[in-house]
Amino acid sequence: MPIKTNDPARKTWLDVAPNSDFPIQNIPFGVFLTRDDIVTIGTRIGDYAIDLGALHQLGYFEGIPLTDDIFLQDTLNDFISDGKKTWRAVRNRISEIFKKDNPALQDNEEHKKIVLFTMDEIEMQLPVHIGDYTDFYSSKEHATNIGTMFRDPKNALMPNWLHIPVGYHGRSSTIVPSGTPVYRPMGQTLPANEKKPIFGPSKLVDFELETAFITTDANVLGEPIAVSEAEDYIFGMVLFNDWSARDIQKWEYVPLGPFLAKNFASSISPWIVTLDALEPFRVPSPAQDPQPLPYLLQNGDHSFDIHLEVDLAPEGEAPTTVTRSNFKYMYWTMAQQLSHHTVNGCKVNSGDMMGSGTISGPTPDSYGSMLELAWQGTKPVPLNNGETRTSIQDNDTVTIRGYCKNDQIRLGFGDVTSKLLPVYKSKTKR
Amino acid sequence: MPIKTNDPARKTWLDVAPNSDFPIQNIPFGVFLTRDDIVTIGTRIGDYAIDLGALHQLGYFEGIPLTDDIFLQDTLNDFISDGKKTWRAVRNRISEIFKKDNPALQDNEEHKKIVLFTMDEIEMQLPVHIGDYTDFYSSKEHATNIGTMFRDPKNALMPNWLHIPVGYHGRSSTIVPSGTPVYRPMGQTLPANEKKPIFGPSKLVDFELETAFITTDANVLGEPIAVSEAEDYIFGMVLFNDWSARDIQKWEYVPLGPFLAKNFASSISPWIVTLDALEPFRVPSPAQDPQPLPYLLQNGDHSFDIHLEVDLAPEGEAPTTVTRSNFKYMYWTMAQQLSHHTVNGCKVNSGDMMGSGTISGPTPDSYGSMLELAWQGTKPVPLNNGETRTSIQDNDTVTIRGYCKNDQIRLGFGDVTSKLLPVYKSKTKR
Repeated sequence: MPIKTNDPARKTWLDVAPNSDFPIQNIPFGVFLTRDDIVTIGTRIGDYAIDLGALHQLGYFEGIPLTDDIFLQDTLNDFISDGKKTWRAVRNRISEIFKKDNPALQDNEEHKKIVLFTMDEIEMQLPVHIGDYTDFYSSKEHATNIGTMFRDPKNALMPNWLHIPVGYHGRSSTIVPSGTPVYRPMGQTLPANEKKPIFGPSKLVDFELETAFITTDANVLGEPIAVSEAEDYIFGMVLFNDWSARDIQKWEYVPLGPFLAKNFASSISPWIVTLDALEPFRVPSPAQDPQPLPYLLQNGDHSFDIHLEVDLAPEGEAPTTVTRSNFKYMYWTMAQQLSHHTVNGCKVNSGDMMGSGTISGPTPDSYGSMLELAWQGTKPVPLNNGETRTSIQDNDTVTIRGYCKNDQIRLGFGDVTSKLLPVYKSKTKR
Repeated sequence: MPIKTNDPARKTWLDVAPNSDFPIQNIPFGVFLTRDDIVTIGTRIGDYAIDLGALHQLGYFEGIPLTDDIFLQDTLNDFISDGKKTWRAVRNRISEIFKKDNPALQDNEEHKKIVLFTMDEIEMQLPVHIGDYTDFYSSKEHATNIGTMFRDPKNALMPNWLHIPVGYHGRSSTIVPSGTPVYRPMGQTLPANEKKPIFGPSKLVDFELETAFITTDANVLGEPIAVSEAEDYIFGMVLFNDWSARDIQKWEYVPLGPFLAKNFASSISPWIVTLDALEPFRVPSPAQDPQPLPYLLQNGDHSFDIHLEVDLAPEGEAPTTVTRSNFKYMYWTMAQQLSHHTVNGCKVNSGDMMGSGTISGPTPDSYGSMLELAWQGTKPVPLNNGETRTSIQDNDTVTIRGYCKNDQIRLGFGDVTSKLLPVYKSKTKR
């Protein structure tokens, strides 16, 4: 059970700043390059990255059934595939190893030198090989805003929206970790009042404030996952910036959905925060009316109170927080999304990623994209330096942060930050 | 250069039936389980599967720069990643080894025992690990039929269709090789004249007659592939049945495209036929009017004359050929599809798969789906046993075949065949 790892009174012998996203109650999982250029699986407490491969070799996971090389890998997929019982046992053990009064590692200077890294010594990688990536569209406020802008304010939601966690397939190959710059995409767009498209750089690059969850192997081909069991197959969550080119999207997306408007890049935060860590922040999701079909019906609380913020910083300037939203606004839960995704027998694998869709809150300062914040360009968003924005400009940096906080603890995701570079210029002639 | 491998006069010392899809001019690549339950990469001539891993270990590829284990893998991805020069060198060498007057292997009984398998001794696997799968919508006849049925016959094509090779992302995890049965999917549908959806088995399961191409690593994130170079990054082609649930599709697909209606299963033929093998069958693609934007403009012939047929067989009955189409009807070429896909910088990897979209010809007997053949159920398709079909029924088997033929040679893809099973029943209580 995850209870003791979440005890707010639990302290660690490592230094942790009071506002850190990574207290000993968090213990996320990630993959990093060490100072010796070795790839390993690790966790993080405060500003220390912890090499789980080294900890395992030194015997600290004795008694937990793990293969010798489970952490000496460049992705978490195999570890995730070991299942929830194993993730929980490992996370509990890490919590013990770093507990304030545990001398085993604390007093072993030689081991500490091998196991502990400061964050500036390492380089975070993509935590998983993402076999398939699906993006949902599960914020009612976002879907309503889009429908109001582009279709009919009186019928903003499509007829299926309240019955189906609407989703579509995205492209795995262009998912990059925080820190990877993104190029402004070229593409076809249809200028206003024209009948023929033109080709050139997108003029409407946008962020989308999302989270995503990472699954384990959940089923065999043909087999649905019951909504009541779906959370057991969710390893954890990351922050997700689903970069979008609105002008390309508008021209291309009928009738088969967004394609090149989305697949030029999508950015995720590198630490996967487990559902066990998020447990103290569990809250109800919004009431669903009409009642979903039985295969989507849930009892209990299935959302999480996760504060989400987006900063926008022009080149060389201080950032402006342009929106504050919350994961709890999501109409459809992750369990409903995963259950719906598999109700037709679709196979879900370890390391698959499922995005929430843009998470907009009820008020205009909580919208999850520049499209909504600037309401199709009609309400430019002011920045602290006196500039305004209706879309992302070259060399702007966008940062999504996410954290949970109650009276006793705070824990979070770190951030996903990426800079929009001008259109790609080939370095060498092909 | 591929010329000598295509020489129609070229003979092999292996027995090959005159109507075989696999003369020595073909030499496709695939992955199979041998009689000893070992996975290996192989090729096929006539009804012999040839173990390329064994051939390599026995020294038959001497002089070609290949790693020792390049064929001892369960996917072709690494071999494909070696690039066109290597594929061509290997294919040319295989053509030499099996040429009629070459005694090296022909007269070595011991080696032949190790290298050669009959088709009934092996089990074909998925030939590649498909990182990402994209499906296009590039048959003008198909898009026109769909637009005519579901929207407005006078404006059947969407405004973007003649400017963009429209495509969308599909799900890799449910792509299965020929022979794997497919379960009828459950899902939400909206009955006619109702406002609320119901949940149950799809009542409108359909096949889609498609081909697909497999790519190599083509670019870095941000970098487009020029249309003039795109064919160099295409390893080869397979037949593709993009199973579809029409009733689920109709309810779910607005506004983000098909999702559960497609991702319950997609079936491919197991042998990848190279573009070098298809070279003698190169033909012009249909004239494009209006002229595409410059980044999609091509000179020369960029389609292939590939005959395509679909058989439908009820349980225990002889098959009926329900349609005959041809790859050459495709409006957008594979090079245009790949170039468009990357024009925004989208990264393409070795083993990615891109489907053509349903390939319908100009006449009603050449349509590529039951939806079109039976025109939304209004023209039931007769079978040889006296039954009719407007969609695929439980225990029906659907087989797509594809071949190229001129005065001198015939070569083909074999087939992709799959049986539609009733809705999945859980074997064990979860």
